Amino acid sequence: MDQRISLITLGVADLGRAMGFYSGLGWEGSSPDGDVAFYQAGGMVFALWSRAKLQEDSAVADDPGGWGGITLAYNARSPAEVDAVLAEAEAAGGSIGRAGAATFWGGYSGVFIDPDGHPWEIAHNPYWTINPDGSITR
Amino acid sequence: MDQRISLITLGVADLGRAMGFYSGLGWEGSSPDGDVAFYQAGGMVFALWSRAKLQEDSAVADDPGGWGGITLAYNARSPAEVDAVLAEAEAAGGSIGRAGAATFWGGYSGVFIDPDGHPWEIAHNPYWTINPDGSITR
Repeated sequence: MDQRISLITLGVADLGRAMGFYSGLGWEGSSPDGDVAFYQAGGMVFALWSRAKLQEDSAVADDPGGWGGITLAYNARSPAEVDAVLAEAEAAGGSIGRAGAATFWGGYSGVFIDPDGHPWEIAHNPYWTINPDGSITR
Repeated sequence: MDQRISLITLGVADLGRAMGFYSGLGWEGSSPDGDVAFYQAGGMVFALWSRAKLQEDSAVADDPGGWGGITLAYNARSPAEVDAVLAEAEAAGGSIGRAGAATFWGGYSGVFIDPDGHPWEIAHNPYWTINPDGSITR
């Protein structure tokens, strides 16, 4: 198995609402069938799909609801950009889990929660490089 | 917010066990401190960290345990490679959620579950391109 991830799918309650939120962040994607939506995100694809269908498709017997131990992160190029993205997410209908602040590891980060409860950490990590194409090198 | 994801962190119960599993899949990463582990995965970083610490850091009030509506996927170059990756995951200590089989959307896929309950769909999608560097173009 090569060391890469092709796709991340977030389960959502209402595809239109979820697409509206990510559209509010400036993300452009499309739904071929009104059922699933795909967004090209660098070298991978980000998808939104019914949480119940994703559960069944993922061979998960029970969905207790809520968070499941996975967090996505977006690295910004400065602390000010972290704050700007958090403000953008709040304006788009997300909630702020924690405001931008210095972290114990020497960076700066905050968290927004999307309308389906999926957390995104927005971080400035001065030790990792963000390449011009947005890819990250640690 | 640019249309990209920098980092995916999976919460785990035992970092050594989780690193052993991904090592069994041929993934090379390292832990700077014995607490978190990082793996370069194409243009992003894949991380393993204590689920309880990740919960707190992600500003998640309650963790009901189990799955939380996010599934990762790995696209393979053929149905035979799907079966090979599933066999590799089972040999490394994962469980098979569903065996490789034709899908309703015209591809071929199966699911393995990692030791912490995180599902990975392994798929051959004949409609999407896997570039030589492993990036996906839909």
